Amino acid sequence: MKKSLVALALMGAFSAAYAQSSVTIYGTLDAGIIKRTGATVAEGKRDNNKLGFKGVEDLGSGLKALFQLEIRYEPDTGTIEGTTRPLFQGQSRVGLQGDFGTVRLGRGLTAFQESITAFEPWAGMPNPAGFQTDLQVAGYVTTFGSGSDPLGPAGNSGNRFSNAVWYNSPVFGGMFQINTTLGTKENDGLATAIIGHGTAAAPQYPVGANGVAPYSISATATNGPGALMLAYERNAVETKFWSIAGSVKPIEDLKLMASYQQQDQTETVLINPKTKAWVLGANYTVGVTLIRAGYGQKTPDNVLNNPNLVKTKQASLGADYNLSPRTYLYVEGSNKRQATVINTFAMGIHHNF
Amino acid sequence: MKKSLVALALMGAFSAAYAQSSVTIYGTLDAGIIKRTGATVAEGKRDNNKLGFKGVEDLGSGLKALFQLEIRYEPDTGTIEGTTRPLFQGQSRVGLQGDFGTVRLGRGLTAFQESITAFEPWAGMPNPAGFQTDLQVAGYVTTFGSGSDPLGPAGNSGNRFSNAVWYNSPVFGGMFQINTTLGTKENDGLATAIIGHGTAAAPQYPVGANGVAPYSISATATNGPGALMLAYERNAVETKFWSIAGSVKPIEDLKLMASYQQQDQTETVLINPKTKAWVLGANYTVGVTLIRAGYGQKTPDNVLNNPNLVKTKQASLGADYNLSPRTYLYVEGSNKRQATVINTFAMGIHHNF
Amino acid sequence: MKKSLVALALMGAFSAAYAQSSVTIYGTLDAGIIKRTGATVAEGKRDNNKLGFKGVEDLGSGLKALFQLEIRYEPDTGTIEGTTRPLFQGQSRVGLQGDFGTVRLGRGLTAFQESITAFEPWAGMPNPAGFQTDLQVAGYVTTFGSGSDPLGPAGNSGNRFSNAVWYNSPVFGGMFQINTTLGTKENDGLATAIIGHGTAAAPQYPVGANGVAPYSISATATNGPGALMLAYERNAVETKFWSIAGSVKPIEDLKLMASYQQQDQTETVLINPKTKAWVLGANYTVGVTLIRAGYGQKTPDNVLNNPNLVKTKQASLGADYNLSPRTYLYVEGSNKRQATVINTFAMGIHHNF
Repeated sequence: MKKSLVALALMGAFSAAYAQSSVTIYGTLDAGIIKRTGATVAEGKRDNNKLGFKGVEDLGSGLKALFQLEIRYEPDTGTIEGTTRPLFQGQSRVGLQGDFGTVRLGRGLTAFQESITAFEPWAGMPNPAGFQTDLQVAGYVTTFGSGSDPLGPAGNSGNRFSNAVWYNSPVFGGMFQINTTLGTKENDGLATAIIGHGTAAAPQYPVGANGVAPYSISATATNGPGALMLAYERNAVETKFWSIAGSVKPIEDLKLMASYQQQDQTETVLINPKTKAWVLGANYTVGVTLIRAGYGQKTPDNVLNNPNLVKTKQASLGADYNLSPRTYLYVEGSNKRQATVINTFAMGIHHNF
Repeated sequence: MKKSLVALALMGAFSAAYAQSSVTIYGTLDAGIIKRTGATVAEGKRDNNKLGFKGVEDLGSGLKALFQLEIRYEPDTGTIEGTTRPLFQGQSRVGLQGDFGTVRLGRGLTAFQESITAFEPWAGMPNPAGFQTDLQVAGYVTTFGSGSDPLGPAGNSGNRFSNAVWYNSPVFGGMFQINTTLGTKENDGLATAIIGHGTAAAPQYPVGANGVAPYSISATATNGPGALMLAYERNAVETKFWSIAGSVKPIEDLKLMASYQQQDQTETVLINPKTKAWVLGANYTVGVTLIRAGYGQKTPDNVLNNPNLVKTKQASLGADYNLSPRTYLYVEGSNKRQATVINTFAMGIHHNF
Repeated sequence: MKKSLVALALMGAFSAAYAQSSVTIYGTLDAGIIKRTGATVAEGKRDNNKLGFKGVEDLGSGLKALFQLEIRYEPDTGTIEGTTRPLFQGQSRVGLQGDFGTVRLGRGLTAFQESITAFEPWAGMPNPAGFQTDLQVAGYVTTFGSGSDPLGPAGNSGNRFSNAVWYNSPVFGGMFQINTTLGTKENDGLATAIIGHGTAAAPQYPVGANGVAPYSISATATNGPGALMLAYERNAVETKFWSIAGSVKPIEDLKLMASYQQQDQTETVLINPKTKAWVLGANYTVGVTLIRAGYGQKTPDNVLNNPNLVKTKQASLGADYNLSPRTYLYVEGSNKRQATVINTFAMGIHHNF
């Protein structure tokens, strides 16, 4: 008969409860100098900065348990990302992986938001030249009431689901994959009502209101030098979003990318509820240098009759000079035309650890 | 004569200051789906989620230095626990261990709160079927002015001492252990006055008031298949709490548990200041499955003459299906009767790393 | 032609993107008991408490990439330092090191603030006996509008630059080093206007105002048993600060230190804008014990004619009893005379990991 000693602070007993795991610490520290039209020279970032913890446990028979926790932060001030976002803004997910694919629970990028970065010339890096947080998602994360998380706290990331379940299929035939994310109806902390088709007194989504269960689905196909993505997402206030994207490598050192996306806010926005956008991009490798180039446009619905809904046009060009597989220096510029023109120039260092 | 070069950013000098330590990263990521009576299906957790850092340094002669820092977080949203709790909500403690026992300073569970989990059928896991945060502590962490930390910030954990010293004795004769926690009188940030026997104009504990020095003591005895605990705690506003608990393993795969606890708020509550509770529980192992079952009641003072102080009755049943010593799937349900009846059903995955 | 599979949640692919790095986790946990004149016995700290992550990547040809992220926290309550400071209050920096020296971007101590700690008998540890945060910097981090970061959020650390670039020269001839920190003009979040030479209606630095680009420079020389430092700093509101400091080891076990510093707030303060301070200190090693002693004075401008600007006089004495190169027990006391006299006595444990 085993004895289970009831005793506290026995340090030797700490790790006896289970076999020692191997947690991997990883991250990114990217900092640079940015000059934007009309702003003072500032220090900032090009990529999202991360400090993460992850691990995989082999459960036998091809089954694995996996977890990942990812802090996001601002390198120029040392605060967490956006100063108000969750500690594990990057992701907090746990799940199982096997022949059936991968199932995870928690918080993270939606299936669409995670898939589209492969078709964006800045690989989803948001600042300042990238297209991910505006054109690549048709404004889907920046307009009030839209985005993947419209019922989240103000300033929270708009391209993630909290309270969700992820499923990634195996890669069928080495080519096809289906990814889905399904959230609960839970209100995640929205502090301002969404009036929508209601009134100020009786808003469509009052503070604290639950939404509909949001979901996101992406399908990808890879065949030799070519890749294709189809994605559809519906958020908790029934904004609909879809996208098609493709990439091709005509030569090994060149990757060409194109995407089209459309957002439909008919359920909450009275006039001009649709936004369309497209982005073209290229990545070209020359020795240890990677050239990034992109151009895109975003067109709100009925823009010709509504001068306040101006088109957005963005052109970006940049270069990464790789010092190692983990570290590069970069320089980049972008020209973004909306009601005004904003030129941005940035240079910095990007280090993965 | 040694030379001490004054120079900055010499990376090689970083670790030269002391021998390399071995910090252990550990944690728990538990996420599941919960359905409560009257609430929408939600994603949540069963256990407290942790990301911790700890280490032991051998100082020679049987003496060890030890530290532990433990982040708590919500896996479904990525925020820190409760969104407002301290970063190291789990614990932040440093101390020495030797023949004399273990002495630590910092913040953590009190001696009682840490000991009682061994006698709770959910091992102290709070949601949703566990008994720890209500019946197992006679409401001691949930009622205003009670709990181990009544002078802490609102929403803070009520079962810890900040500003405290812990002593855990050695395990005498392989059986007996004494654990004590002694806090300072410091006000830890309570933002609302405790009126108590005072008035709104002259509350018993105004905002910022110091309390009395709180303390907690537990004694445990383990003998073969049986274990016993006695505990007494007095918090900073002189609420008194005591508990007796026992467990026995009639066969190796079965552990039966029982506890009784009583809270006395006479010093701050004018009428019905006493709360009593008991919990019965069982853990039964069948192959790789652990069955958890429990039933408990909590009775406020003078309940028959005071219909607002209704009894709480809770019954819970659950099962853990172990995929490995570190990972299991669980399913559980509970029925909790107070003024209303709340049924809860949950299923999820629990992963230690 | 390489194929770039577009697929999500392939755990095996996680670390394939770059060679495995080796992140070092390090930190300090220091907790003790403090008694101050007029205050209840409290638990607190002597040193800043840290949990850090750092790494060095060898890029070949003598070039290295390096990063460092450092959390600061309060061990007695588990909160982040000051409860409102940035998560990575200690530092968040990334950069390159080579024959040319070290260049880093991010947030951290200024060149002066990082250099002066070598000439302070408590090595920059702030509480309660150390001189770093008051006398050693002539009040430079404690007076409103002064400090290295006067445009930062209230309660933020005042001895760091956010949005800055660091350069540390090589150590020339094994003796000389130059360190510089240059910040941008960015307002870092000051929530209260600095009236200065303006009026309440038209303050010199309104909320959100940019400042001038702040900078800090220190030069150090080490020659056998002696070391010398010269430093100059100008913050974002044009407060000027300079310091000279020296140390000598007449015998191997004794280090004597002296520093003088002067702060000039002429640009924002109308009367008595200058503060002068000096500190004398000694570290004496006896076996495994290190004795720390110090005395210093701080004199505001024109103090004789302005009794509100009283002198500060502080005497401190302490001892570290080393249990290992990483862990020591300490006891210390200080007597600080300003308008009132505050005596402080503290004892505790200091553990590096």
